[in-house]
Amino acid sequence: MSTGLETLSEHACFGGVQGYYRHASTECRAPMRFSVYRPPQAQAGPVPVLYWLAGLTCTEETFAIKAGAQRVAAELGLMLVAPDTSPRERLPGDDASWDFGIAAGFYVDATQEPWAKHYRMYSYVTRELPAVVAAHFPARADAQGVFGHSMGGHGALVCGLRNPSLYRSVSAFAPIAAPMQCPWGVKAFGGYLGEDRAAWADYDASVLVARRPRGDRLLIDQGTADRFLAEQLRPEIFADAARRAGQPFDLRMHPGYDHGYYFVATFVEDHLRFHAGRLCA
Amino acid sequence: MSTGLETLSEHACFGGVQGYYRHASTECRAPMRFSVYRPPQAQAGPVPVLYWLAGLTCTEETFAIKAGAQRVAAELGLMLVAPDTSPRERLPGDDASWDFGIAAGFYVDATQEPWAKHYRMYSYVTRELPAVVAAHFPARADAQGVFGHSMGGHGALVCGLRNPSLYRSVSAFAPIAAPMQCPWGVKAFGGYLGEDRAAWADYDASVLVARRPRGDRLLIDQGTADRFLAEQLRPEIFADAARRAGQPFDLRMHPGYDHGYYFVATFVEDHLRFHAGRLCA
Repeated sequence: MSTGLETLSEHACFGGVQGYYRHASTECRAPMRFSVYRPPQAQAGPVPVLYWLAGLTCTEETFAIKAGAQRVAAELGLMLVAPDTSPRERLPGDDASWDFGIAAGFYVDATQEPWAKHYRMYSYVTRELPAVVAAHFPARADAQGVFGHSMGGHGALVCGLRNPSLYRSVSAFAPIAAPMQCPWGVKAFGGYLGEDRAAWADYDASVLVARRPRGDRLLIDQGTADRFLAEQLRPEIFADAARRAGQPFDLRMHPGYDHGYYFVATFVEDHLRFHAGRLCA
Repeated sequence: MSTGLETLSEHACFGGVQGYYRHASTECRAPMRFSVYRPPQAQAGPVPVLYWLAGLTCTEETFAIKAGAQRVAAELGLMLVAPDTSPRERLPGDDASWDFGIAAGFYVDATQEPWAKHYRMYSYVTRELPAVVAAHFPARADAQGVFGHSMGGHGALVCGLRNPSLYRSVSAFAPIAAPMQCPWGVKAFGGYLGEDRAAWADYDASVLVARRPRGDRLLIDQGTADRFLAEQLRPEIFADAARRAGQPFDLRMHPGYDHGYYFVATFVEDHLRFHAGRLCA
């Protein structure tokens, strides 16, 4: 990772800086964009970093524009980092559907052609991006948390369960909680990972939590009016597996809330305070 | 105004409802969209209403998505209403430039053809829309405020100065403060109102404040890193006119902030509390 960082834009925001950046990713063999919110405290020294993984069709901008998280991050001294949701290198069929390919990387390392060359979002998010952030921003490498929404909630749970020492706190909004048992997950895993379901299990939070629960509590928020809840998200499968494995968690069901960012914005303050409780200690 | 209201979508948000609506406007002779945030307090009875007027290229969605104002509106019990920034009825040349025509109605009643038939945003915002809101939402007609950004900051100052009894509170973010003395304003007023500059004065806040100041204090926020500040916004002209007319105002210059919604989001809480101080009393 010797490449430089290109600043696309920076904007004063709640006393800190909301920035957009691009770099040449070695994992993805493609230019990748990400956003960083630096809180005011970052002027004085390194601060904890909270990674946001976004959902299908989103970009590195979505969370920074829609969630309204900078206000609380500025208060708590948290850096917020959000990668794009897939490489943008064009491949045949990558825009044939909105739930696979472009903006639908599912935070896995693809093994199937033609995806394997570029679609390495798991390694990108867990290894390369933190190194890029550490090299260019005042980020505490020993204080990382991860959260996300929908496809990115799945990503956050998977990253957190597989790397308990890398992420000190994990939470999710409306995650795809059992991807091997829903149409989105079956389509994505089949396409990126092939037909061998043993390979899928490394990216299924409900399987991972049974194998190796984390010691710390997970926070999951879910709206009851979410149109994807019953068929695609299936938090009850995760909750059941977590309970049996002894994984502590709070699954909060919010009456009337849907799948969008008005739901995320409503509860994002709770999540930032939850993470700060672990990261700023 | 006997037409019905079409609900486009509604979303739970901070205990209230963020909604999008469409109706047949008699002023604009066209379908018009607007957004409404109903705070939780609106379930119990009528609440004060704060109108947001957006800037060039924006829609009725921009403020609701980007400003993060619903959290404070839910706390204070304020309804937030945002109209679109122009009729969307297509006219020859309406998309030839981004600062005139579509999404650039400038909150004036056009007198020149072909604009005069549809582009009646001043009457729409000050008369028709409040009537529609009163008919369909639990809004207090005696407690209205107005604020806005850039072109919409201009609109808010003009609406507020011309209708002191209609709006009990007025504020603006980075307003086009002297439109007769900047390229955006000269282009828009020439196109919509013709060459007679006497007609322009009714839509120039710096002229209006000299004619008839309001008794109450105005709040204006402006970023110093705003690339439109010197040529297009010119708050110093307004400040000078207001000072001479005895109009109380706070013009807050914020070092490093630019023209975008990261700036608006940073200070929107101050504006909501400013308006609530007048409207909720």
